[in-house]
Amino acid sequence: MIRNGRIVTAADDFHGDIGIRGGRIAVLGQALPRGHREIDAEGRLVTPGGVDAHCHIDEPPYLNARLADDFRSASRSAACGGTTTFVPFINQLKGETLAAARDDYMRRAAPSLIDYGFHMILKADEPERIRTELPALLEAGLRSVKVFMTYDGYMMDDAQIMEIMEMVRAVDGIVMVHAENGHCAHHAVSKLHAQGRDGLSYFPETSPQAIEREAVHRAITLAELTDTRVMIVHVSGDEAMEQIRWSRARGHRTLAETCPQYLLDLEPHLHSDEWETAKYICSPPVRESARAGDLWRGLVQGDLDLVSSDHCPYRFEGDDGKKAFGEARLGQVPPGLPGLETRLPLLYQEGVATGRLTPQRFVELTATRPAQLYGLYPRKGSLMPGADADVVIWETGAPRPIRHADLHDACDYTPYEGHGVTAWPACTLSRGEVIWDAATGHVSDAHGRGQFIPGRRGEP
Amino acid sequence: MIRNGRIVTAADDFHGDIGIRGGRIAVLGQALPRGHREIDAEGRLVTPGGVDAHCHIDEPPYLNARLADDFRSASRSAACGGTTTFVPFINQLKGETLAAARDDYMRRAAPSLIDYGFHMILKADEPERIRTELPALLEAGLRSVKVFMTYDGYMMDDAQIMEIMEMVRAVDGIVMVHAENGHCAHHAVSKLHAQGRDGLSYFPETSPQAIEREAVHRAITLAELTDTRVMIVHVSGDEAMEQIRWSRARGHRTLAETCPQYLLDLEPHLHSDEWETAKYICSPPVRESARAGDLWRGLVQGDLDLVSSDHCPYRFEGDDGKKAFGEARLGQVPPGLPGLETRLPLLYQEGVATGRLTPQRFVELTATRPAQLYGLYPRKGSLMPGADADVVIWETGAPRPIRHADLHDACDYTPYEGHGVTAWPACTLSRGEVIWDAATGHVSDAHGRGQFIPGRRGEP
Amino acid sequence: MIRNGRIVTAADDFHGDIGIRGGRIAVLGQALPRGHREIDAEGRLVTPGGVDAHCHIDEPPYLNARLADDFRSASRSAACGGTTTFVPFINQLKGETLAAARDDYMRRAAPSLIDYGFHMILKADEPERIRTELPALLEAGLRSVKVFMTYDGYMMDDAQIMEIMEMVRAVDGIVMVHAENGHCAHHAVSKLHAQGRDGLSYFPETSPQAIEREAVHRAITLAELTDTRVMIVHVSGDEAMEQIRWSRARGHRTLAETCPQYLLDLEPHLHSDEWETAKYICSPPVRESARAGDLWRGLVQGDLDLVSSDHCPYRFEGDDGKKAFGEARLGQVPPGLPGLETRLPLLYQEGVATGRLTPQRFVELTATRPAQLYGLYPRKGSLMPGADADVVIWETGAPRPIRHADLHDACDYTPYEGHGVTAWPACTLSRGEVIWDAATGHVSDAHGRGQFIPGRRGEP
Amino acid sequence: MIRNGRIVTAADDFHGDIGIRGGRIAVLGQALPRGHREIDAEGRLVTPGGVDAHCHIDEPPYLNARLADDFRSASRSAACGGTTTFVPFINQLKGETLAAARDDYMRRAAPSLIDYGFHMILKADEPERIRTELPALLEAGLRSVKVFMTYDGYMMDDAQIMEIMEMVRAVDGIVMVHAENGHCAHHAVSKLHAQGRDGLSYFPETSPQAIEREAVHRAITLAELTDTRVMIVHVSGDEAMEQIRWSRARGHRTLAETCPQYLLDLEPHLHSDEWETAKYICSPPVRESARAGDLWRGLVQGDLDLVSSDHCPYRFEGDDGKKAFGEARLGQVPPGLPGLETRLPLLYQEGVATGRLTPQRFVELTATRPAQLYGLYPRKGSLMPGADADVVIWETGAPRPIRHADLHDACDYTPYEGHGVTAWPACTLSRGEVIWDAATGHVSDAHGRGQFIPGRRGEP
Repeated sequence: MIRNGRIVTAADDFHGDIGIRGGRIAVLGQALPRGHREIDAEGRLVTPGGVDAHCHIDEPPYLNARLADDFRSASRSAACGGTTTFVPFINQLKGETLAAARDDYMRRAAPSLIDYGFHMILKADEPERIRTELPALLEAGLRSVKVFMTYDGYMMDDAQIMEIMEMVRAVDGIVMVHAENGHCAHHAVSKLHAQGRDGLSYFPETSPQAIEREAVHRAITLAELTDTRVMIVHVSGDEAMEQIRWSRARGHRTLAETCPQYLLDLEPHLHSDEWETAKYICSPPVRESARAGDLWRGLVQGDLDLVSSDHCPYRFEGDDGKKAFGEARLGQVPPGLPGLETRLPLLYQEGVATGRLTPQRFVELTATRPAQLYGLYPRKGSLMPGADADVVIWETGAPRPIRHADLHDACDYTPYEGHGVTAWPACTLSRGEVIWDAATGHVSDAHGRGQFIPGRRGEP
Repeated sequence: MIRNGRIVTAADDFHGDIGIRGGRIAVLGQALPRGHREIDAEGRLVTPGGVDAHCHIDEPPYLNARLADDFRSASRSAACGGTTTFVPFINQLKGETLAAARDDYMRRAAPSLIDYGFHMILKADEPERIRTELPALLEAGLRSVKVFMTYDGYMMDDAQIMEIMEMVRAVDGIVMVHAENGHCAHHAVSKLHAQGRDGLSYFPETSPQAIEREAVHRAITLAELTDTRVMIVHVSGDEAMEQIRWSRARGHRTLAETCPQYLLDLEPHLHSDEWETAKYICSPPVRESARAGDLWRGLVQGDLDLVSSDHCPYRFEGDDGKKAFGEARLGQVPPGLPGLETRLPLLYQEGVATGRLTPQRFVELTATRPAQLYGLYPRKGSLMPGADADVVIWETGAPRPIRHADLHDACDYTPYEGHGVTAWPACTLSRGEVIWDAATGHVSDAHGRGQFIPGRRGEP
Repeated sequence: MIRNGRIVTAADDFHGDIGIRGGRIAVLGQALPRGHREIDAEGRLVTPGGVDAHCHIDEPPYLNARLADDFRSASRSAACGGTTTFVPFINQLKGETLAAARDDYMRRAAPSLIDYGFHMILKADEPERIRTELPALLEAGLRSVKVFMTYDGYMMDDAQIMEIMEMVRAVDGIVMVHAENGHCAHHAVSKLHAQGRDGLSYFPETSPQAIEREAVHRAITLAELTDTRVMIVHVSGDEAMEQIRWSRARGHRTLAETCPQYLLDLEPHLHSDEWETAKYICSPPVRESARAGDLWRGLVQGDLDLVSSDHCPYRFEGDDGKKAFGEARLGQVPPGLPGLETRLPLLYQEGVATGRLTPQRFVELTATRPAQLYGLYPRKGSLMPGADADVVIWETGAPRPIRHADLHDACDYTPYEGHGVTAWPACTLSRGEVIWDAATGHVSDAHGRGQFIPGRRGEP
Repeated sequence: MIRNGRIVTAADDFHGDIGIRGGRIAVLGQALPRGHREIDAEGRLVTPGGVDAHCHIDEPPYLNARLADDFRSASRSAACGGTTTFVPFINQLKGETLAAARDDYMRRAAPSLIDYGFHMILKADEPERIRTELPALLEAGLRSVKVFMTYDGYMMDDAQIMEIMEMVRAVDGIVMVHAENGHCAHHAVSKLHAQGRDGLSYFPETSPQAIEREAVHRAITLAELTDTRVMIVHVSGDEAMEQIRWSRARGHRTLAETCPQYLLDLEPHLHSDEWETAKYICSPPVRESARAGDLWRGLVQGDLDLVSSDHCPYRFEGDDGKKAFGEARLGQVPPGLPGLETRLPLLYQEGVATGRLTPQRFVELTATRPAQLYGLYPRKGSLMPGADADVVIWETGAPRPIRHADLHDACDYTPYEGHGVTAWPACTLSRGEVIWDAATGHVSDAHGRGQFIPGRRGEP
């Protein structure tokens, strides 16, 4: 029984109690009868547990670098950051069947502390495998795949993407698209190298907004031609937003996601050629235009659907991290930032605390909508009776700086070091069990308790 | 205790029971203990009672015509249509103080069967009165006023609107704007009369979309200059929508409402000069562009906030109705359609049953969002514990034609005669009391039980 | 005979000779036979004489201030700046008939050194006079009128503008619109005064871009509703441009003009409360957005039709100039800048010399297009055989600062003091006569040689 | 001496005489002295000879089909249609060097009756050849190349296009782009075949507007990233236009061309599966949206720069024409329409005669602007002294149907059979020689008189 909280859902904001039984929400009410166990939420915000629909965990190495987090550390970090469900990627190894890859990731995920789903990354180099194997996996329950318009080995041509879209449409699933034009990016990088301008400060020039905008327009067109739902992931700036708005005004249901790194003003960190810059290198790059607030307008007005972390945790130091290749030069730093644990506090701070977002919209963007889109609803993303009792009780108060030392991932830095936040998960419940209690600093060690949640078909 | 319903809120959709105590929602749950009184909602949709934020009741006559509904008949009709709260207008009589007008409407509303709030219509002809009296009324709790950019006696110049906007902004209220350019409309009508083209079939030419679009652009600008929240009421077509989208993409929080008459394809009824056409005359006119579906896109994508009825019930026959002036000519038919009772069934049918809208979005547009915007939330528009137990239990099934004979207003026709709908309120509860039961056809006669609900300040 | 010039028209750019006979262009060719008089244009640019379609000369005083230029000084200044035709305004005095006003201005213009046409300013306060008298004047040859959406005494309501538009459309003329929303401007000024923020540095706040943008949208709508050609004069910034582009993309033939003061970056001069700021006060205000270059894009891409001067020459010093009212406060400085003589050199410098505009486009914007639009073509704006021999021979070379001491108007300053230009009229011919020769510094004193050029009907 | 014509240039419209000497315009004037030979143009329109910047002549076969026209017949047809310069394509044969291809086409063009330039088509399959050989050809004077985003063997990826753009930018040339997304088109065709929907009436579905719009957006982006001038050729509909407008409003100098087949309403001819449909098959397809007039707006407002023919003359009958492959099925009909001779009469008819375009704009779109853009100006596209005396004298009068029997190409049909036109070249002069005289029906047989006109650098 969670008592006397300020309970916020994607629609509502009220005071009351939440009764939990058998790992599910049993009852919502006011002055409910005493339960076996009582959690006092007096004066505290109570929300559904966060759903992080975009994170990379335990995937194959890139260059020499290896993701720091496996499912054990990632799920622990997520729990401490208020996320009770995540949806990482199945990333098939060379030569592996798609089914084998799926099975492999089911094994890798076994030690998870929190519940999970999966998207599947599809790569360009085995089109025949996709053609023959994907339909069965979709039939078996896979609801979302991710394709890339850039990156060697990943980048597909438009016909291949359309073919995949049609397969996914058959199960009313979602095609996630990494929208950057790889040909253009490749051209830009080659030119910078040829000109000897390959220090890290040139990173923004490897993929200016036009390269993302073009790919977004193209992805929208492919979805229009195949009548498929497309999710533009990690939208980074106003030019991509313009295309998304344009398509929605024309009646297309283009879906779009952004991430905290594109909402905060990280771009000034990209001006130096020193190694430190590597901490802020991700793709697409963080943009100068963050300051103009156009992505925030997208969140407020409804033209963006989700805020995910795109957690991609390369350590900064060490021979398996950002510096693993050895030189602070373009093309030799794996792109990606850690962010699983900081996603909700940062969005609360910069969104709700500043008055840009209502608490309800915060819940919608970070829990309800991702659960709905990826078929995890109503078990996830909801506090209604029958839903899994995934709940976050928030502590709010004076600003408190984010410190990596306080985080629980296996990375060795956070790009948000020192950023003050005024809300932090005091207590996280997963199916009714307290898995994080800030008062004691105790994280559950019940690794393996996390369950795979299959995506449901045809969620809006 | 409402048992085993499919409960839909603006965010959620789940199965369960609703426990009611003291006129309020006490508890939501599954398999809750037996209550004093049980309503079986097995297999039925259960939603918050509708909130109709735009209706004209018992206002002064226009030309010779008189609104058919007083608060008694209007509230009965609303209840039977699933609306448990409405927000009509205070329409001051010539010479009356604003406070006297408010008090007068409080008296007129006394026999209401359902709860109510009020907006206040402000007119152009007593600017000094507005300047001196309005601040006190706002201070006393008025949260929303309506101004007109057209109609003799009502139409204000832009400076007057800005002055009012600044007063309303001081209490974080909302200025509703009837956006048609009265000068242009007047010019159009004069010209049609001069050309002898004044049959009812010319009605669309009295206010083409450009006249609405211009006024919308202007209203948005006035709101931008005064940093005020503006609600564009009864948006009728794609050109007005274009302006609203444009302003929202620029970051303005322009609010906008549409009505069923603009979403359905009523325009073909305007092609005749016969009296019958008068049944479809309202301002702005219903548009040919309804067929293109742009307003539906606005509802789906979030660029429209509300669906209200703009209930304005002139009888068709009789010497106090549409024909009261005696000639089927332009300028001699009072504009306005009845729609309080049909609003929810029509929107459910054309929105939810067709798959355009999720049930959640239906609830948001018709109950939660209007309650929030006009400060009635969380008492209204919510099913969460603590909210007033205003609940609708829906019967769904085979299409059933709307017949005026089945409606409960005091009008003598409906523009939707024969339109099939597949959902209809089976039972309406207001603060826990059943006020409409379709099974018995019984409407409560407890006139006077309705309460005035003051608007809260600063709702988002 | 003008010999060996680089001759530029609105379309062409070639080397050759121009033969003149009887005040008209007789022949264009290469190595033409020797004429009576030879002007050597070797290495020099030769263009049609400029047509300035927007200038205020000898109009009634504003507040205590009086325009410095009469037709004598204005035409001299124009000639020295390469303008051989101007089109000032007839500005009717209180109580005067429109015909009397026209006749009065025909008399005032008698001493002109250059040819001229007239637009007529229409004012709000005598609608009946306009209604009864304007048709006859239009029938008699008036082709363009100007209406104001701001300024006490001038500002019309939209119905009145529509009525005028319909009269002007009947002769296929043009309605010029000063597009600022006077109600909004009035509100802004009142508020600034009430707040004691009435120093000259607050001038930009009296009419922010939104006030212009709104009026532009409205003017476009009125023209759309009446199917009339509208000319948005002195477009000042990107928000007005956005509306013009929007309307043109929809197929409306919206015409638009800008002026050098909106193309150069004068806005930094508005930051002080000192009297000096008055030198840069005009309506609409010069904008910060000039730096972003959107108006230049409009000139390049064809979304702007004309560059005029909006010459409005109030002296800075003296009891009939900018300081005439006595206080450096908002509302007490007449808005308007001198610019007749500097228009062409400034546009050449910032347009052609910088590579933004081709020389042909320069000629089109400043001579050919204004002549065509206002019915003066092919006598004016052309170098083709049969055209009036109005020709400018340009001296180009090292930058030379503009100095008011070198100008020929009756004003006492130029807002462009010190601005370097690389092209200057070496010689100006009007109907074959040299009226300005920079080599000798001689300006013709043949005042009265200028002729009235009636506007032709229906030019595109 | 051409006497007493109504002479129209891209800017001017006047009456006078044109004196010609040595194949060049010597003098323009009125009442000029008598010449050796006089052509009476009294009452006739006189324009610069047309420049057709997009036509396919004597290129390698496609499938089994062969272009009907060689330079002999094509130049004859052009002359009779008022075109005095054309710019066909060099289309390299497999294995040939670019220089050899150029030399080959110089030989093929030898029998031309009119002057000519060349663009070079670049193909995807020999990137290394382009990389090594193209710079020398550009250095040697090639100013414009064409790349394809579709068609097997032609279609390039974006990196290759960017590489070419950078080479062409170095000489300030133009990259012409056939903008359709080949991957999407291939997908569409495969699907139609798989569904057995491969009759000719399905042709529009092989490349809906979205496929062109996407490619246009992408081509614009590539040009933006490389700061190159791009020419979108044969713009076919409103969706492509929207992208062009969008880019120009952002300040990009996107160039664009359309063709008569996209301006007239040919789309109804695509509804049948009969062979007749093949006569109207070209890529991109003619669009239903032609009726809405958006391309006409682009011509009027300046968002389109050129009207070319895209002459691609496959005979309808015979074993080397449209039916050569033998079946009336998708993919087996070579796309392309003849149009060299009808371009100017059709555009005059539908543009000038209907009042959409001024005669000056007609000249600009069809002669002056193409000459300027491709570096042929001022020799071509101009009537000014010094220009080549390429002149068309027009006969105007009652509508006269286009009949293929009256045309002079080597094709066997025209898609415009029976279309009435009211203006037709009465007489065409090339460098002062009459090469077509409608009065006698005589076409010059001086094949070989045509000259190659090298493109000049850096024309705006």
